[in-house]
Amino acid sequence: MINNNIFNKSKDLLKLVTFEYQNSKRIGALFDKFVIDLQQACKSMPSDMKSLLSLGTTEYNKIINVLESDNEKYRISLDSIKIKAPIENPDKVICIGLNFRDHAKEGNFQIPSEPVVFSKFVNSICGHNDFIVKPKETDQVDYEVELVIVIGKEAKNVSKEEALSYVAGYTVGNDISARDWQLHKPAGQWLLGKSFDTFAPIGPSITINPLQIDSQRDIVSLDPNHLNLKCILNGETLQNGNTKEFVFNSQELISYISRVITLKPGDIIFTGTPAGVGFTRNPPLYLKPGDHVVCEIENLGKLENYVK
Amino acid sequence: MINNNIFNKSKDLLKLVTFEYQNSKRIGALFDKFVIDLQQACKSMPSDMKSLLSLGTTEYNKIINVLESDNEKYRISLDSIKIKAPIENPDKVICIGLNFRDHAKEGNFQIPSEPVVFSKFVNSICGHNDFIVKPKETDQVDYEVELVIVIGKEAKNVSKEEALSYVAGYTVGNDISARDWQLHKPAGQWLLGKSFDTFAPIGPSITINPLQIDSQRDIVSLDPNHLNLKCILNGETLQNGNTKEFVFNSQELISYISRVITLKPGDIIFTGTPAGVGFTRNPPLYLKPGDHVVCEIENLGKLENYVK
Repeated sequence: MINNNIFNKSKDLLKLVTFEYQNSKRIGALFDKFVIDLQQACKSMPSDMKSLLSLGTTEYNKIINVLESDNEKYRISLDSIKIKAPIENPDKVICIGLNFRDHAKEGNFQIPSEPVVFSKFVNSICGHNDFIVKPKETDQVDYEVELVIVIGKEAKNVSKEEALSYVAGYTVGNDISARDWQLHKPAGQWLLGKSFDTFAPIGPSITINPLQIDSQRDIVSLDPNHLNLKCILNGETLQNGNTKEFVFNSQELISYISRVITLKPGDIIFTGTPAGVGFTRNPPLYLKPGDHVVCEIENLGKLENYVK
Repeated sequence: MINNNIFNKSKDLLKLVTFEYQNSKRIGALFDKFVIDLQQACKSMPSDMKSLLSLGTTEYNKIINVLESDNEKYRISLDSIKIKAPIENPDKVICIGLNFRDHAKEGNFQIPSEPVVFSKFVNSICGHNDFIVKPKETDQVDYEVELVIVIGKEAKNVSKEEALSYVAGYTVGNDISARDWQLHKPAGQWLLGKSFDTFAPIGPSITINPLQIDSQRDIVSLDPNHLNLKCILNGETLQNGNTKEFVFNSQELISYISRVITLKPGDIIFTGTPAGVGFTRNPPLYLKPGDHVVCEIENLGKLENYVK
């Protein structure tokens, strides 16, 4: 019995998740109520997202074959699994600051003339439904919804024109910041204030760039520079922007960064946040234990976290 | 025939290297003219330094047993091997800025009231005798000799008193910087200027912290806060300091960083450089192709690199 109506490659986007089931870590294709267990469906497929992304098109085509075939036996209900950060071990967590004009203005920063690049340490990564831990070291924990680019191929000195062909996919990120540690320490380096454990929730899935999938390349479009993004705190929408307002678009960011460093499969780039963050409000609004934060990006999904 | 005069645990320090021999990557104990091939001598020993360091004392004791036994058949001449960066894949490359008063002053920075923490991306790591590549993007490539701490155990919120018990060992580092990219970009983040590919030479070996070796704990001392360090460019000594001049000593740095992030085995911490760097000279002195840079730290060894 062939069941192929769960995925239509001419209109559906392929969403991959890392998940835990029966104490093992696996990769799945995400649907509304279940995942397709790709370790069961494709025996040779890596169970590590970084390895899978580095294999690229060949693996995505195998996955689409599974999605278009009889796959009922590989379905696992979302209730039975724990979704993890889609990629837990990137070599680099790259972040862009002040990449929306309205956000730069609200923080009294100049609109940058070149991308502002900083980083988070990898220990800051957590996933959908993981807790954001408010450290005792700070009472100024702030949210920032961001589009996160996931690199799929080694990239050094790539042009803007070819940049998107190096992108494996996209996910939703929340660039959590301890504003006192970010902005008020000697020599002004943002790193520590951005790197407390759990300060980089990402997920729930990586939406694979249609340019990497032979059969989708001319059918489905996913323009990273034209996506609505929102942050909703305890039910109230506090950020609501669109990546068309980027100061530097996705291609420009990848090309610029690749002039300095060799990008590797699995590297992630937080691309900056629109206006509406907590520290620029009057009075300032900071996250506290019990808060529920939803970051949502059009076509990519909803990343939800509670604070503890 | 027992040959045990190559290592005397009451006075010699254990130095571990990552090396390449006959197209395979291995770990060795370093001596003047040879390495002891530990993959041959201890069949179960990991060939990856991060994994070995995370095993700690048990593995170091096995190694010392080999060094005190008949080990001639495990010796490989230094002429036959390629020394690699001792650890090539740390989760984090943490750096401390302005940690020597005389260096902060020469750069017109204030002496910091708290450690200044920034990072390099892992692609910047290279080893002894590797080339430092001057990118076309900058003509302001500068040297900085630094003591590098290598973490051996997971550390979160550790006190100054217990901090050194988390240290696997120490190596020599050269914190190469593109001064224009470090100091003159929007929002003042140092990251990119510090992270060009090859901008973090480390090595040649990791000198294991005697506190991690049962039989050395009360015999050999290696105080990370009392070590001479020098940078010699084309035969001329340009930096000459001692880590006793640290603004924040090794214990204070580890304790401070661990308040924010969980340190993991293999993480490395560049601890800051003494006065004498190139950009504060009149006229400024920058590295150019053909230059020969030696960074040397008492008891730890000499890290040599050419610029191309």
